[in-house]
Amino acid sequence: MALLAENKLVREIPVCSSCGEKAVYTREYSGEKLCKSCFLSKFEKRVLKTITRYKMFRHDDQVAVAVSGGKDSLVLLHVLTKIERQFPETSLVAITIDEGIPGYRNEAVEHAETEARRMGVEINVLTFEELFGRRLDEMLGALSENGTKLQPCTICGILRRRAINVAAKRLNATVVATAHTLDDIVQTYFMNVLRGDLNREIGQRNDSTAIVPRVAPLRVTPEREAVFYAYLKKIPFQSYICPNASKSARNKIREFLDSYEADYPGSLYTALSAFESIVFQKDRPEKLCRQCGEFTSRDICRVCEILSSFQTNS
Amino acid sequence: MALLAENKLVREIPVCSSCGEKAVYTREYSGEKLCKSCFLSKFEKRVLKTITRYKMFRHDDQVAVAVSGGKDSLVLLHVLTKIERQFPETSLVAITIDEGIPGYRNEAVEHAETEARRMGVEINVLTFEELFGRRLDEMLGALSENGTKLQPCTICGILRRRAINVAAKRLNATVVATAHTLDDIVQTYFMNVLRGDLNREIGQRNDSTAIVPRVAPLRVTPEREAVFYAYLKKIPFQSYICPNASKSARNKIREFLDSYEADYPGSLYTALSAFESIVFQKDRPEKLCRQCGEFTSRDICRVCEILSSFQTNS
Repeated sequence: MALLAENKLVREIPVCSSCGEKAVYTREYSGEKLCKSCFLSKFEKRVLKTITRYKMFRHDDQVAVAVSGGKDSLVLLHVLTKIERQFPETSLVAITIDEGIPGYRNEAVEHAETEARRMGVEINVLTFEELFGRRLDEMLGALSENGTKLQPCTICGILRRRAINVAAKRLNATVVATAHTLDDIVQTYFMNVLRGDLNREIGQRNDSTAIVPRVAPLRVTPEREAVFYAYLKKIPFQSYICPNASKSARNKIREFLDSYEADYPGSLYTALSAFESIVFQKDRPEKLCRQCGEFTSRDICRVCEILSSFQTNS
Repeated sequence: MALLAENKLVREIPVCSSCGEKAVYTREYSGEKLCKSCFLSKFEKRVLKTITRYKMFRHDDQVAVAVSGGKDSLVLLHVLTKIERQFPETSLVAITIDEGIPGYRNEAVEHAETEARRMGVEINVLTFEELFGRRLDEMLGALSENGTKLQPCTICGILRRRAINVAAKRLNATVVATAHTLDDIVQTYFMNVLRGDLNREIGQRNDSTAIVPRVAPLRVTPEREAVFYAYLKKIPFQSYICPNASKSARNKIREFLDSYEADYPGSLYTALSAFESIVFQKDRPEKLCRQCGEFTSRDICRVCEILSSFQTNS
């Protein structure tokens, strides 16, 4: 009985698999238990390793970090600021897109500005209103009246990608770092499968297109660990879910993958490897949109398609 | 008002998109409405087209149809029997595996035997007990006592595949037709992704391995249409769900895909195309199991692994 009680006690105070200190986090997929200090250090090392492994940055890059003000992007900004100190020729700047989602984005933009200032990083805020003439909520209203079949997240995603690209070009950035995590990347691969397109690598540098290349230094970092990093580092972030999110196909996929990963830890990693082993970047025909002159694989880019669809009706 | 009422009436009696008769089925993914006769004819034509497109059969094949007694396999048997009449050199035989799942498989085997007789097809029943020395429920009990991490569906699947192969060889079959539907195939691709393996084509003929090649003539047929075909043809089938099914990873994936397809009809088709566009059959090392001499990619095949794991402990 004494032994049993002792065993129970030992189980209640788990120790760090690396250093033997009191553990605060368990990686279900590997069984590792980590103390605060080892968690933070392994988290940051993994980001650095990801950057190296996928050759995300060059030594003289002008990196634009896309910061929404959510946990993932603020964590990315923190880690990249730390890493950047080791590379004096690289510069870092933050880009924040204010889509215009009242009661949601405002707070996020504030967090982004506060944190960027705290990290000593220049931040540039670009609004949908400035770029496309209206706020997202106005556009969604108009498009929904027109009976659009596009989901809010699709519309917002297309326009946000364009906005980030425009902002990056204005700042002469040579690469954009986005905060997509392992969860996001795998969700996107699944979305692409369900839309019939698997020939797209996600979150890996591709300098062959006309848009500023994008990389995702958190592509092998589980979202859950990004949340815990933010918590340990006391990074204040926008924690509300976007009011449009529940309407998205991605949300269905996210719920499924979250629940699957909980039952079969490590599945997100194996799925990522599976996709990476077979997906290759097909040479897509590159041309310029006949309307706005931006890079597209179509005659008229999707941004112009969306904008024109409600302009003719309003 | 009169016009509105009229419109409502028209909507309540949908007509067949092909012949104008009263429609009984709507294909959500294409918008087609079909009457009974057009549904049956299009269903059968699709199976024939699938067989042709994927080059599933040769003119002188000895086809063994794997018949569980569930709706999909009985529908497959019906359609193949009809198609086979056009190919006098081809012969057809049914294989039924009785795993030994009390209160479940017994009824299914009866349905299989009754229907095969009705179709004039010879049926061969092979039991796990005869082949592996015990019923599935006995094995599952023993393995669960040994703390196996394998799921019941995994164990059953491995042994059933072997049983079908043995039965097919005994009957000198040159190809095995299984009743996997579009839903099954896409589920399997998803399972393989989440297990880190995308280099496996599913349900397509591959004569390069040592096992009897397998084909899935229903690979582009939605399961929902197989159910409706069985209903229209008044085919009695085993309708209970296997008592072990809810424990499976496949079940999680099935639930997700069912719900996704309901929201976004056609997604199963686009997913199948996406997978088909990138998955290729890698040359896997072929060898013979050191224990049983059957084809395997390992030293000891998974069947022997499962059998030995409980034999040593019982």
